[in-house]
Amino acid sequence: MTTPPSEDRPPGFVCPLPLQQYSQVLLAHGGGGRLMHQLIDGIFLEAFRSPALENRHDGAVLDLQGARIAFTTDSYVVRPLFFPGGDIGTLAVNGTVNDLAMCGARPLYLSAGFILEEGLPMETLWRVAQSMRDAARAAGVEFATGDTKVVDRGKGDGVFVNTAGIGLVPQGLVIQPSQVRPGDAILLSGDIGRHGIAIMAVREGLEFETPIASDCAPVAGAVQALLDGGIEVHCLRDLTRGGLASALVEIATAAGCGIQITETAIPVHEAVRGACEILGFDPLYVANEGRFVAFVAGRDAERALALLRQHPLGREASLIGRTSERDAGLVVLESRIGAARLVDMLSGEQLPRIC
Amino acid sequence: MTTPPSEDRPPGFVCPLPLQQYSQVLLAHGGGGRLMHQLIDGIFLEAFRSPALENRHDGAVLDLQGARIAFTTDSYVVRPLFFPGGDIGTLAVNGTVNDLAMCGARPLYLSAGFILEEGLPMETLWRVAQSMRDAARAAGVEFATGDTKVVDRGKGDGVFVNTAGIGLVPQGLVIQPSQVRPGDAILLSGDIGRHGIAIMAVREGLEFETPIASDCAPVAGAVQALLDGGIEVHCLRDLTRGGLASALVEIATAAGCGIQITETAIPVHEAVRGACEILGFDPLYVANEGRFVAFVAGRDAERALALLRQHPLGREASLIGRTSERDAGLVVLESRIGAARLVDMLSGEQLPRIC
Repeated sequence: MTTPPSEDRPPGFVCPLPLQQYSQVLLAHGGGGRLMHQLIDGIFLEAFRSPALENRHDGAVLDLQGARIAFTTDSYVVRPLFFPGGDIGTLAVNGTVNDLAMCGARPLYLSAGFILEEGLPMETLWRVAQSMRDAARAAGVEFATGDTKVVDRGKGDGVFVNTAGIGLVPQGLVIQPSQVRPGDAILLSGDIGRHGIAIMAVREGLEFETPIASDCAPVAGAVQALLDGGIEVHCLRDLTRGGLASALVEIATAAGCGIQITETAIPVHEAVRGACEILGFDPLYVANEGRFVAFVAGRDAERALALLRQHPLGREASLIGRTSERDAGLVVLESRIGAARLVDMLSGEQLPRIC
Repeated sequence: MTTPPSEDRPPGFVCPLPLQQYSQVLLAHGGGGRLMHQLIDGIFLEAFRSPALENRHDGAVLDLQGARIAFTTDSYVVRPLFFPGGDIGTLAVNGTVNDLAMCGARPLYLSAGFILEEGLPMETLWRVAQSMRDAARAAGVEFATGDTKVVDRGKGDGVFVNTAGIGLVPQGLVIQPSQVRPGDAILLSGDIGRHGIAIMAVREGLEFETPIASDCAPVAGAVQALLDGGIEVHCLRDLTRGGLASALVEIATAAGCGIQITETAIPVHEAVRGACEILGFDPLYVANEGRFVAFVAGRDAERALALLRQHPLGREASLIGRTSERDAGLVVLESRIGAARLVDMLSGEQLPRIC
């Protein structure tokens, strides 16, 4: 612990290292990479210490009078508001529903908090609300409560949406990073990179022969298929900001396991691969909004894969790797040419405001 | 239902009246008055219809495997971030904790969603997080889950905070507008107008002989005192945006009762009254962040008042009026000079971004 460079810090201000290197918030602090984790660890976890936060999972599971309640939140600041395959409204529902699903919960209720910028066309807001309604119906959840704030022109960006979600977790089911064991199989639910590239294509005015649409979708049904099939699921993580790479590094770190994955087992559509080459992105780090990884008991690998592939959202599911005691805390990729490469978290971000 | 003036509306776009008068969101749509209610009814309730939303309460009460869970959310966009008596962090905790208390719930867990503007001093964020920690400790709640997003410089305003909260409601306790009965006593928990005036004083650079500090505080303890005392509580409402007047009009409308209140029974500190005169505000409409009204069975009025006054946050509690079958849906104020005046909701807002 040391003091920051600021001259006018309030008495008693002590900023945890390594935040003192950054006197201001950077865009990269929201990118899902190492800087974001430093910000969360150094400021929020430091201040808010609680057993639920220590789990470092997509949501908390709380015991309330015998009911096991999953609770999660996300704010959505995606730009542009509308993109091929979805909009901020579909994202705001599916993103939070998916975080509940990653806890093994059946998603039930959402809250909706809107921060509107003065001057936002009313029609835009109406379209977003309609998307949220449709996405909620598709995911089988209901809006229970909400809030609306308006900020002056130039102090927001059209509309920001926050959703919090609650769901029910079956008794005895514990799905979180600490459950990962050496020898677990790692399944990926489908091809990666479509959400990030769909957004970047709109922003950069790129046109592809086959238009790329976001993969934004609710994945609770695919998770339920695994659980109903009796698969021993240890951990789930949806691949949003920071992509597959960041999700795997987070879990390897939290679980203290090594993760070995095979590049050729990771489905990337041709158009996405091409766009990544043009834009200079690595698909492993590109955001998704309808994809997840499942860490399951090694002996269940083939059966879990078959179950996922029977689900509409899991047709391209793939067994991408295993956990082991080797290289604890690290993710190692066997590349297309057979070389071993260490997969690290990005320091900052490659795609700001992707969700 | 009719179509809006916009020329490029998407096929099938039908905007509910009277929103079609407003093709864009105005600051006043966030002010807690009639325009905000039109926006919420016309866009969000219209799209999201659910039994919980129909209650028009500060939070929803959901039955989850036998547990009665209160669930609520608010976003906080107050400007300036720091003000006498609190900051955006204390507001973000107390505001949501108070919404839970208004459902009769014991507040337990909060989520925290941050939307940071690039360039925000890290120290500011740290101070806000510390305030949130302290306020959570004081209110007896824990942070269970969170999220951080960063938007580009000029697309936010320092920091916006969303909190959602969950709490437990005792079996059999139903506190909501539909429970209000003719003959209920209406108690106000303390003096009004301090939060709004504290903020305006900073914004306008006003100095008073006695500095005015926000009343921002968690009120769950004061509510609990009423419940523990066996008071038959029918409805509770905290007095935030739109002030006492808007809260009473909302409840009169939702409950279909008439409300009669006496101006001389409403405590307003001298400094607040003076500032209101200078600024041209009516204290009835000024925001509070640690005050609530309780609708209790008429026969419990005196006992409830005594219980509130014993609580540190209720020392200036006052019996301000009654409900009746007369003037159903309306709020009538007996003024200082004995005249009857109809209290209406503000159309827009008098104090933007007060919370």
